Amino acid sequence: MSELRIKKDRLWDSLMEMAKIGKTDKGGCNRLALTPLDKQARDLFCQWCESVGCTISVDKFGNIFARREGTDSSLGAVCTGSHLDTQPTGGKFDGVFGVLSGVEVLRTLHENNVVTQAPLEVSVWTNEEGSRFQPAMQGSGVYVGRFDLEKEWEKTDVDGKRLKDELEKIGYLGDEEVGSRHMQAFFEAHIEQGPILEDEEKEIGVVRLGQGIRWYNVTVTGRESHAGSTPMHLRADALAASANIIAEVEKIAHRHKPNGLGTTGFLQVYPNSRNTIPGSVTFSVDLRNPNPDVLAQMDRDLNEFCQSIADERELAVEVDHFWYFAPVEFSASDNVEIAAKKLGYSHMDIFAGAGHDACYMADIVPSGMVFTPCENGISHNEIEFTTPEQCEAGCNVLMHAMLEVAGVVG
Amino acid sequence: MSELRIKKDRLWDSLMEMAKIGKTDKGGCNRLALTPLDKQARDLFCQWCESVGCTISVDKFGNIFARREGTDSSLGAVCTGSHLDTQPTGGKFDGVFGVLSGVEVLRTLHENNVVTQAPLEVSVWTNEEGSRFQPAMQGSGVYVGRFDLEKEWEKTDVDGKRLKDELEKIGYLGDEEVGSRHMQAFFEAHIEQGPILEDEEKEIGVVRLGQGIRWYNVTVTGRESHAGSTPMHLRADALAASANIIAEVEKIAHRHKPNGLGTTGFLQVYPNSRNTIPGSVTFSVDLRNPNPDVLAQMDRDLNEFCQSIADERELAVEVDHFWYFAPVEFSASDNVEIAAKKLGYSHMDIFAGAGHDACYMADIVPSGMVFTPCENGISHNEIEFTTPEQCEAGCNVLMHAMLEVAGVVG
Repeated sequence: MSELRIKKDRLWDSLMEMAKIGKTDKGGCNRLALTPLDKQARDLFCQWCESVGCTISVDKFGNIFARREGTDSSLGAVCTGSHLDTQPTGGKFDGVFGVLSGVEVLRTLHENNVVTQAPLEVSVWTNEEGSRFQPAMQGSGVYVGRFDLEKEWEKTDVDGKRLKDELEKIGYLGDEEVGSRHMQAFFEAHIEQGPILEDEEKEIGVVRLGQGIRWYNVTVTGRESHAGSTPMHLRADALAASANIIAEVEKIAHRHKPNGLGTTGFLQVYPNSRNTIPGSVTFSVDLRNPNPDVLAQMDRDLNEFCQSIADERELAVEVDHFWYFAPVEFSASDNVEIAAKKLGYSHMDIFAGAGHDACYMADIVPSGMVFTPCENGISHNEIEFTTPEQCEAGCNVLMHAMLEVAGVVG
Repeated sequence: MSELRIKKDRLWDSLMEMAKIGKTDKGGCNRLALTPLDKQARDLFCQWCESVGCTISVDKFGNIFARREGTDSSLGAVCTGSHLDTQPTGGKFDGVFGVLSGVEVLRTLHENNVVTQAPLEVSVWTNEEGSRFQPAMQGSGVYVGRFDLEKEWEKTDVDGKRLKDELEKIGYLGDEEVGSRHMQAFFEAHIEQGPILEDEEKEIGVVRLGQGIRWYNVTVTGRESHAGSTPMHLRADALAASANIIAEVEKIAHRHKPNGLGTTGFLQVYPNSRNTIPGSVTFSVDLRNPNPDVLAQMDRDLNEFCQSIADERELAVEVDHFWYFAPVEFSASDNVEIAAKKLGYSHMDIFAGAGHDACYMADIVPSGMVFTPCENGISHNEIEFTTPEQCEAGCNVLMHAMLEVAGVVG
């Protein structure tokens, strides 16, 4: 079995075909969760898996599982998976590479008539990006019990559309109970979304740790008034106050080097008119660090700064810390390392800067991640790029890590 | 004639009736320029003026003129006017008070059979607020030749709707050439939109000077990338850069006390997703000062700071300084002062913090403004308030200033 390899061109062609669904002018993808485009992508995935003899199941949160039976159905499945939804200006690889690597593994085993002892499964998790509905990694989070199914069903997008209705509309409100499958391991192949593997000239990243994440919604409430006739000392300018906080988010990250990160990606101004001092502003804050103690300090820094702005400026600053994701250890990462070694790929240990479905799966089953480099470390961007050879290496490592755990018959 | 007075309750009732058009839950108005609500307001104005014997003309930019003939048609008209459009969360008085004071003057002269030598005119200027279409004071600006008619016709709102089409749609694309009327003076009554008259306990502000204004669109172009896996030193975060500029706009205003003002009222983030470092941000900057040299220094400060941000952060900062409004002297303000004195109202000289249609009219005809106090100096806000007595005082001063110039017969 050690000479078994996936087909580079077939994997690449599948990536390019999937990328046509929601493709953008700049070569990326805009395929938000549970839109008609997401449905098209899901349908294509199901069709591909069925054509190599898999059966499809969909759970109550729209997570899809393509199953390839082994010789012993009593064994937990050896699983892989990721997501097909993208950011509004996303790339062709984030998430999709993991799903289609799973499909490529299924195809390779199918055409080589490889029989495994344990069953194999490839999953597509609902709304990993957290762009249309919050939080991110929602499907895997519901699956492992981090989030309540009924509560997440009620989440709405900016147009007030309810998640459950949207699931139903695209035909992916399944009837399988969430969290009910029998698994023994979960692997996820993913592009690094950072510049480290490229810098170090490694083909494979063995992910040992998932970074901790804290997400906030900050709402600053001041007082609308006329931009031309309200003296500076009588203003309660919600945007000027917010600008100071956003600048501080960046400073907090810099103070907690080398791994501290701080980002405001979303901001809305009310009433958002040139001639009116903004009365309220809502924005996101995202703080990350692999060290939970340092991340807790970053959280305190943010809260203290927001309080000081509220006091100085006599306006209200509400900090809603609605999501905390503790750093994750990947206990199946040794299987990834063994596979990379066996195949002769250069590799290194790395941590995951972004959240991934595997980070939640690690709650309930030994999990591991395979990283491949991506050009200039750029992701969540239409120009995101990974070469066919880099994709091939990641997919081969994934396949051999899975086979190692599942056991090959004969 | 010196005992002639307007009717306080009638003026107040008209203000309240007009305020029903586009009224908001919080007691303000949302009546953006050239919307169906703006049409309703314009129709009501025309109906009121016609019912006291005026003739209505509409020019090619939708500016409306209600004319009351005098005994000598060869004389230039003595004019007053303001606007009926509001901010999205505007009040009941900004602009409307000036227009309806003009209507109240017409009604008072009509019921008292007052005959003037020169004709009188009350005008409604198109899109003073600059909220739906930019720039502000657009109708009066086109009228006096500051802006080109054909170019302004082509302006579009955020939905891409063209101004000329919107004028036509509401039936206010007139056929009179802009700037073609014969005028000898222009007065505008307006709420102060600032806290000074209230602080000084004066009933009337005699506006001597209109503050200089510079408007900018700033576009910061960085690079979208993943919020979780892009190290701080490899980011080109357009929003973090913008936050520093917005905070500096406030500092520039504070450095040029007592009259420097600086505001960012409008901001848009792209792609505006929590998990993606913003690739580009566009925002407004509004700088004001009554002293043109100080305002020029504020302009230099802004440009230098933006350049320094671009250099430090290796991203693009484009500063489009698309509108400069030089400080204005009101040469007919003596007529306002004489009227206030004659009527026994407490009064003081003041400058206009906001732009007004009268600021443009001053280009072509001697102009003057009458300010009334407004509660807590708050304007461009749904809670904007001026008492019936304060409105009455402003309207009486307006009437007597106009009569002084027009000449009463008999």
